[in-house]
Amino acid sequence: MTIPRSPAVPRSPAVLLSARVREVRGSAIRDLLALTARNDVISLAGGLPGTDLLPRDRIGAALATAVADPAAVQYGETSGLRRLRDVLATTEGERLGRRLAPTDVVVTSGSQQALDLVARAMLDPGDPVVVEDPCYVGALQVFQAVGAALHPVPVDADGMDVDTLAARLAAGLRPKLVHTVSSFHNPRGATLAAERRAALAALADRYGFLVVEDDPYGLLAFDGPPPVPVAALGDRVVRLGSASKVLAPALRVGWLTGPTPLLAAVERLKQCTDLCGSTLTQAVAAELLADRPWFDAHLDRLRGALRERAAALTGAVRETFADAVTYSTPTGGMFCWVEFTDGTRPADLLPVALEHGVGFVPGAAFAANSKPGAAHDRAARLCFASNPVPALRTAVGRLSAAWRRSAVSAT
Amino acid sequence: MTIPRSPAVPRSPAVLLSARVREVRGSAIRDLLALTARNDVISLAGGLPGTDLLPRDRIGAALATAVADPAAVQYGETSGLRRLRDVLATTEGERLGRRLAPTDVVVTSGSQQALDLVARAMLDPGDPVVVEDPCYVGALQVFQAVGAALHPVPVDADGMDVDTLAARLAAGLRPKLVHTVSSFHNPRGATLAAERRAALAALADRYGFLVVEDDPYGLLAFDGPPPVPVAALGDRVVRLGSASKVLAPALRVGWLTGPTPLLAAVERLKQCTDLCGSTLTQAVAAELLADRPWFDAHLDRLRGALRERAAALTGAVRETFADAVTYSTPTGGMFCWVEFTDGTRPADLLPVALEHGVGFVPGAAFAANSKPGAAHDRAARLCFASNPVPALRTAVGRLSAAWRRSAVSAT
Repeated sequence: MTIPRSPAVPRSPAVLLSARVREVRGSAIRDLLALTARNDVISLAGGLPGTDLLPRDRIGAALATAVADPAAVQYGETSGLRRLRDVLATTEGERLGRRLAPTDVVVTSGSQQALDLVARAMLDPGDPVVVEDPCYVGALQVFQAVGAALHPVPVDADGMDVDTLAARLAAGLRPKLVHTVSSFHNPRGATLAAERRAALAALADRYGFLVVEDDPYGLLAFDGPPPVPVAALGDRVVRLGSASKVLAPALRVGWLTGPTPLLAAVERLKQCTDLCGSTLTQAVAAELLADRPWFDAHLDRLRGALRERAAALTGAVRETFADAVTYSTPTGGMFCWVEFTDGTRPADLLPVALEHGVGFVPGAAFAANSKPGAAHDRAARLCFASNPVPALRTAVGRLSAAWRRSAVSAT
Repeated sequence: MTIPRSPAVPRSPAVLLSARVREVRGSAIRDLLALTARNDVISLAGGLPGTDLLPRDRIGAALATAVADPAAVQYGETSGLRRLRDVLATTEGERLGRRLAPTDVVVTSGSQQALDLVARAMLDPGDPVVVEDPCYVGALQVFQAVGAALHPVPVDADGMDVDTLAARLAAGLRPKLVHTVSSFHNPRGATLAAERRAALAALADRYGFLVVEDDPYGLLAFDGPPPVPVAALGDRVVRLGSASKVLAPALRVGWLTGPTPLLAAVERLKQCTDLCGSTLTQAVAAELLADRPWFDAHLDRLRGALRERAAALTGAVRETFADAVTYSTPTGGMFCWVEFTDGTRPADLLPVALEHGVGFVPGAAFAANSKPGAAHDRAARLCFASNPVPALRTAVGRLSAAWRRSAVSAT
């Protein structure tokens, strides 16, 4: 068979991308991470747990145990390794104050995949979704990829402004989903107040939407127990969890719990998305999460180290910038949200900061609208989790030098 | 803030699924795997590599090496661990007969994720896609999930019937993608003939579509080198590969190479899909694929064992069923396609077979149309990879007993 070459069609591969993929913003943060990966830069930019705090020895031992089982290298169930779902049903059930069965849990490739699958399972193009502003960038990308219509609601020091949400709902907004990072917010550092949690669950009941409670940081409370999940206060909540911040990102273990028909749809979509996760790394997560004495002691160490890092960062920010900034007081998690009150625009400061050997993320990167407001323009997200205390102090010193130099050149 | 409970909205969570997710068929095969997981059933159903043939000791040693590096437990680059992309650029470049850079490769969570991301990056609802018939079920699900319009083209003993494709194109069909499992087809066991490969690449040039060359089995050629990839014959090919069948599924390592704008879109989508794969398991894949003497010897052992298993299965089928069946002669891969010529319908045989302790997949499960044709109705896919030779012989013995019993009860 001879196929004549048509001169009308160019030979170079013209890739026709779908309408929706053209909507997805690249993550400014991921692009920034390439810059901050330079050895001479201390990065406060990435949302990376401190590599030195991850339980690498224990993971190594658990891997050696796991690989001794022939089934550990084979394909696994789409919904996740049964003994991991067992332990997650127990621990999540304790947090929710009700009994969960292993079939009430689907294991995903990090909580990011859970979010992506929930969005794909529920949203058609144009469907309204409420997002927080500032917003976790990975959530913005997921909702853009399915063509959802985004309705931002502000976040303040007590988390999502649920009164504003209630007013929008009363005025007629009917979202399918309301997304919230309920505890130790990325990027805002805030935790949804208890009365707001109850109000949000009640609004979901009243208006028939689902809350997506995205909670990778909840266990990282510095003092006292983790906040009571929104999912403990109502049925209309799909709750996302992750091992990335408490064990290790490279396990790629996240999970979701929520209404049964949604879990069934998510599992069906996961089947065509990647068949299943890694039985090997899921076996490791199962072993480590099931060893409660070890895991509790590990969490204590982790929380203690993060509290120390947060205190070092905010202390250095206060000493250095005094009343030129306001900042969130971290009570858990990984992030501090700084707002300049002296007219400094962190987006302009960033290139000078990188020259001085320090990276961070300007607030505008987290704007839920493509046009960031003034509040985003003067804000910056600093991650205190990735570096030990001395490096954090050095980083703030470098930031201060960059700030003084930009102030001089601006005058 | 008090939220009045509206009696108009029911309290039980009504999950409103998206229009597209309702289109996705569950995989009959995955459902079947639950049945064949019974200890007393020998499964010829799953597309599972033989657990006994996977290099578990070597993987264990590589895991121990990998976890010694603190970076191995952290988040990684979305496009994949650099040293894995290095080795893949080398090995894929050799197969394509042209130089590839590491940036010409994106690592995914198995080749299934590569397929899902390519479909999401390129297809809008209603876009025409050519699929093979019978078709890999995971491809059908992916294309259904994006709402593509499927145009099946038959597969015979020489792979996709490219003459039929050419006729449809000449008659006006303008697909965005043409999907093919080019070597050791799942489920048909066939390999696309050399002249058809050249014709397919030429058609892609002439009509401006992209070929998706889905090639997880290519390295499992029983005799001689793997077939020359379609991607070696033209530019309009996105090529998918996998470590699942040659190293282990639990690594969740697949990859794609293809036109640069598509790879960029795939990487952007992967960012919001799961951020990145596991640095740990990617480090293992990199080490094992880069150790060429070891990998070549391992592949030789694997191919030898699969050749032996294929011969045992087809030998037993021939002796048992004689001219009541025709079957494909496996030259690589994992599957044998059997067609009954005596009126037996494998879908009816299956429940009896399960009672006799053997599982397989009826051909209708692979029909590209929701209404399977007569050819699908009399076919069955037998996987010879998952079980050692004695178990394969026992399995065919059980299948024969079930077949005799159904023949008796049918008369």
